[in-house]
Amino acid sequence: MLAKKADVVLVLLIQIILIVLFFIFTTYDDKYESNAYPMFQDIHVMIFIGFGFLMTFLRRYGYSAVGFNFLLGALIIQWALLCQGFYQLNENNKMKLGIGSLYKADIAAATVLISMGAVLGRTSYMQLLIMGIVEIAVFSANSFLGSNIFQVADAGGSMFVHAFGAYFGLAVSYVIELKKAKTITDNGLEESRYTSDLFAMIGTIFLWLYWPSFNAVELTGDGQQRAVMNTYLSLASCCVTTFAVSLIFSKNHKFDMVHVQNSTLAGGVAVGTTANLMLQPFGAVLIGAVAGVVSVAGYAKLTPWLSSNFGIRDTCGVHNLHGIPGVLAGLIGAFMAGIASEATYCKTLYEIYPARASPNMTATAEYTFLKPGLGRDEAQQAGYQTLALVVTVTLAVASGLLTGMLVMWENFLPLKEECFDDRHAWHLPRKKAEIGSMVTFKPMIKNNYYSVFERVL
Amino acid sequence: MLAKKADVVLVLLIQIILIVLFFIFTTYDDKYESNAYPMFQDIHVMIFIGFGFLMTFLRRYGYSAVGFNFLLGALIIQWALLCQGFYQLNENNKMKLGIGSLYKADIAAATVLISMGAVLGRTSYMQLLIMGIVEIAVFSANSFLGSNIFQVADAGGSMFVHAFGAYFGLAVSYVIELKKAKTITDNGLEESRYTSDLFAMIGTIFLWLYWPSFNAVELTGDGQQRAVMNTYLSLASCCVTTFAVSLIFSKNHKFDMVHVQNSTLAGGVAVGTTANLMLQPFGAVLIGAVAGVVSVAGYAKLTPWLSSNFGIRDTCGVHNLHGIPGVLAGLIGAFMAGIASEATYCKTLYEIYPARASPNMTATAEYTFLKPGLGRDEAQQAGYQTLALVVTVTLAVASGLLTGMLVMWENFLPLKEECFDDRHAWHLPRKKAEIGSMVTFKPMIKNNYYSVFERVL
Amino acid sequence: MLAKKADVVLVLLIQIILIVLFFIFTTYDDKYESNAYPMFQDIHVMIFIGFGFLMTFLRRYGYSAVGFNFLLGALIIQWALLCQGFYQLNENNKMKLGIGSLYKADIAAATVLISMGAVLGRTSYMQLLIMGIVEIAVFSANSFLGSNIFQVADAGGSMFVHAFGAYFGLAVSYVIELKKAKTITDNGLEESRYTSDLFAMIGTIFLWLYWPSFNAVELTGDGQQRAVMNTYLSLASCCVTTFAVSLIFSKNHKFDMVHVQNSTLAGGVAVGTTANLMLQPFGAVLIGAVAGVVSVAGYAKLTPWLSSNFGIRDTCGVHNLHGIPGVLAGLIGAFMAGIASEATYCKTLYEIYPARASPNMTATAEYTFLKPGLGRDEAQQAGYQTLALVVTVTLAVASGLLTGMLVMWENFLPLKEECFDDRHAWHLPRKKAEIGSMVTFKPMIKNNYYSVFERVL
Repeated sequence: MLAKKADVVLVLLIQIILIVLFFIFTTYDDKYESNAYPMFQDIHVMIFIGFGFLMTFLRRYGYSAVGFNFLLGALIIQWALLCQGFYQLNENNKMKLGIGSLYKADIAAATVLISMGAVLGRTSYMQLLIMGIVEIAVFSANSFLGSNIFQVADAGGSMFVHAFGAYFGLAVSYVIELKKAKTITDNGLEESRYTSDLFAMIGTIFLWLYWPSFNAVELTGDGQQRAVMNTYLSLASCCVTTFAVSLIFSKNHKFDMVHVQNSTLAGGVAVGTTANLMLQPFGAVLIGAVAGVVSVAGYAKLTPWLSSNFGIRDTCGVHNLHGIPGVLAGLIGAFMAGIASEATYCKTLYEIYPARASPNMTATAEYTFLKPGLGRDEAQQAGYQTLALVVTVTLAVASGLLTGMLVMWENFLPLKEECFDDRHAWHLPRKKAEIGSMVTFKPMIKNNYYSVFERVL
Repeated sequence: MLAKKADVVLVLLIQIILIVLFFIFTTYDDKYESNAYPMFQDIHVMIFIGFGFLMTFLRRYGYSAVGFNFLLGALIIQWALLCQGFYQLNENNKMKLGIGSLYKADIAAATVLISMGAVLGRTSYMQLLIMGIVEIAVFSANSFLGSNIFQVADAGGSMFVHAFGAYFGLAVSYVIELKKAKTITDNGLEESRYTSDLFAMIGTIFLWLYWPSFNAVELTGDGQQRAVMNTYLSLASCCVTTFAVSLIFSKNHKFDMVHVQNSTLAGGVAVGTTANLMLQPFGAVLIGAVAGVVSVAGYAKLTPWLSSNFGIRDTCGVHNLHGIPGVLAGLIGAFMAGIASEATYCKTLYEIYPARASPNMTATAEYTFLKPGLGRDEAQQAGYQTLALVVTVTLAVASGLLTGMLVMWENFLPLKEECFDDRHAWHLPRKKAEIGSMVTFKPMIKNNYYSVFERVL
Repeated sequence: MLAKKADVVLVLLIQIILIVLFFIFTTYDDKYESNAYPMFQDIHVMIFIGFGFLMTFLRRYGYSAVGFNFLLGALIIQWALLCQGFYQLNENNKMKLGIGSLYKADIAAATVLISMGAVLGRTSYMQLLIMGIVEIAVFSANSFLGSNIFQVADAGGSMFVHAFGAYFGLAVSYVIELKKAKTITDNGLEESRYTSDLFAMIGTIFLWLYWPSFNAVELTGDGQQRAVMNTYLSLASCCVTTFAVSLIFSKNHKFDMVHVQNSTLAGGVAVGTTANLMLQPFGAVLIGAVAGVVSVAGYAKLTPWLSSNFGIRDTCGVHNLHGIPGVLAGLIGAFMAGIASEATYCKTLYEIYPARASPNMTATAEYTFLKPGLGRDEAQQAGYQTLALVVTVTLAVASGLLTGMLVMWENFLPLKEECFDDRHAWHLPRKKAEIGSMVTFKPMIKNNYYSVFERVL
């Protein structure tokens, strides 16, 4: 028991280190973009209600799903504030925190929670915390590399958040399975039950509803309105094709809750990188429709194939919701960059792709956002978009594999057989038979055994 | 099975037609009313969480309630964007889509989801989709007729959305029952269970909370504040009288969840048409209090009477939540129009009722919204308000009857006996007894059978 | 039954009196702070979803938790609008109601719902209504005393709302137990079940997410941004330490849902009074971390001790979530007031602490908020902050004891043994065995009895 209590010390130590880092490095930002507050709150709901409840679908893992999501999210947003701020230290080595820092921290947390989805039910909470801490460091570096060095556009983070989180999580999952070899047997718990599926729908629908905020929060003006419109439209058509294609892939021509809970969201990912671009409404609807089809096909065919042939298990199927649609988004991003011109976007082209501005461009009274760029043409920009996608996936897999090895260290309490089961980490409610003095129940039990359950459920 | 698969083809075809229509007719609006975004998101939550979970109250129809609401809503918002835009095509035959289009599409979807409530559990998903597509076309025409031709005020859509949706749905429901005659028997599933009632409360409360946004989103300034205040107050008092009157109509002096889930919302409908008017706070509180009483009485007396005497079944009791309160709202709207004067509203009278402006009125520096009207007096305006209400209900019933006949066409898969049951349209989770290797459960089963259920629920 | 029906008459009478009071005393405010609307809606969700679902954790008291919270909240917001307005009547004896009045009414309702948490499951709905009506009157007076007479700062209401609500509720709870003496026995229902814990998490997480709006809604500019930041950070670290310390206090090194559902929120209370101050990010994180530790320790040790030694029962443990963290917030408020200087806050010092302005200070073009104050120094302000805390707790306990005696009057229907049980106040769904014609079930029952439950749950 002594060794076991060590995990508490470690968690408290991490929190103390965070307090010290906040003390050394942070101060308040005095600029206040109050307009961003409602969108920040929408994203906040996505992270803790959306992801948290989406993962409650397992029949006996609801406490862990929503609870570990809560703990992991709360730790990671603190750490992400710091990691992202390290790239923006001012002359006094201080980072200034404001509303913008908060929604960026929440978005960073999404990356980790996506990875959590890949390994859901097959790790201890300590493994999740360690995974998240490492992942945010790499995520922040990759985002900085993509946005500031490669200067690519990824409005909704489909590459840097969704693809990164999915492939990182799959790599961790791969190592976890590899290390435990044959110890995990099917205990019948990697399934849903009626009520857990309904809880999961709370998560799904809040994610679906607030996704326009996720894709639009970092934008302003016209670009923000387009991001909202495109995301709304893409998610709407994605929902429709998901339902239709779910029937096709099912044995008895019935809908499958796994598809409804997940694939309906693929449209938000697939349109993310280009959400602010001139896709036109029909383009957004088209992207969403395709994403739904691809995602359901992934659930029906790809996930079982990867699992049985390569041992890459994926509890929530994040590959189909975040991985493939994220890569798709990156490719659409490269395509749209390749056809973007001043004729279509006017001067805002150089706000969207700052590297395309000529090196001697300067702000004007009308276009205050203009500044010297790298003079890239559309083909070069498309090339960099593709490069960022490749680097993101590569870095995610590489760092995920290493993180997988790290978290299998015995001190991080890797699970043995007890997968997908709350009772190993949580006090569960007493069973009714254990409650001695349940006076009010006794008469009912005599009549028939249904009444007992009816009363209590 | 071949014939059955035809439904998938039809759904995908509808989505493809939508893509084509978006391609031909739509473009982005460059005006961006970003202030409306938070209210739009509130309404978005009402449509997909509010209506979706409100309808999960049935004991074995939760997947269908929240799932079909999701599918139907996602299809309808696309179609409503187009239908409403057809009345606003510009010189290039394009409609410009922006935030305003999105919340209007969501509000239109509410109409269809209200109708869905009337027939809940007694249709296939295909019947719902077809019903929704027809309904939105008629709804858009009726709204245009009322707002632009009759020039009546209906701030919260109590006539055009709530009354229309309710009477349309009841008409469809009537035809469905008529056509199946005696094939539907009571299978014991048109009831709630403990947990499903709690899920339904999620829907109820989100609807109740965000209703002020529903009634106020299309307004600005003072009028918007009054709409928020009046709706908040009306819903508060409606909740109180609903609980009290629920005790009166109950046999054992106990609260009834049906009333709490539904009648508490009637205040939002009843105040809708006049939400922006000078009801004064006491007026709003009074309207809500009356609406609660009327709605509970409807559930207790009218719905059973309509069902047994006329075969008009109404699964969610939308008549009592949307129908009667919608008519009540229309009558209050006529009354308030009849006493509205420039003394009370100053020049904003002509913003609220543009037809009351004299034909030679023009905008001034202070009142930029002024424009030539039809020179109606208060009695004429009250007459037009009444006319719009009568036309709305008539059109809803007529088009609902025709739509009912259409959806009973065999190709739209009308149900036979299997009402209120998820298992005909959904893969349900495996039963525990079917899960062979549930090692962790076996020891418990031996001890006593309670433990099994306790663990899993 | 006649006597019992008297409660309905009383509730309707209260609603009619409210209508009359609204008629006499209220009108619309013509100023509209539309920026506050999104934060108002966040708080609205906290009150009705947050508190409502947080209290559904009891296994058989979910209808009452969310239902009575709904009824009580809806009545109290009306009454709080009036009570708070009585201190702001204009020359015509009218109070002007706008958005600001709405969020203040919601915040006032929080006070009552906190008290409800202390007595949850051990009162009738009538006792709650009477308790709430008295409590709001005293709450409004105490808030006026603290804010306007003592001129103390309490941005997030940690003293006036949280500490007041908790100690008032504990005093009421004490009297209730005292009066019934030995009649309450443990009926096994003061516990959770698996599903009820998940419903409760919906409440917890929405409270946790929207808490920054609660602490920041009354502020503007820099102060608002700091309130948002500090609350976000405090809640994040509080969540982390809650999980860690939950393991320490548990017997088997497992997480306890009671802690996760409640103590994770203590950081929002503890930082409330000083949310807008220059705590610096590390200060906010530190406060939250401490609050989590203190709150979990309270649940593990203090609540059982108070219950068994003093008969002070506390169903939801509001003492650990609102009481102690509220007192802690008040003490931090006094400390921060004691070190606040113009050097740190510039002229906004006199906006935060108006009493510190010199008696001859006047508004300038740059600082329009300046006005003559009382010329207090920092020590005096700290003294007044402490005084307000002591007065608040004292008044809460005193008025709570008297209210406890009032609500035990027989006409308010005090419970006898039937605690924590929905069936005494609600129509519960029919049991399955009572449903005669459940044709679709019969074949399954024959196979095995598991299937029945699986299907239905």
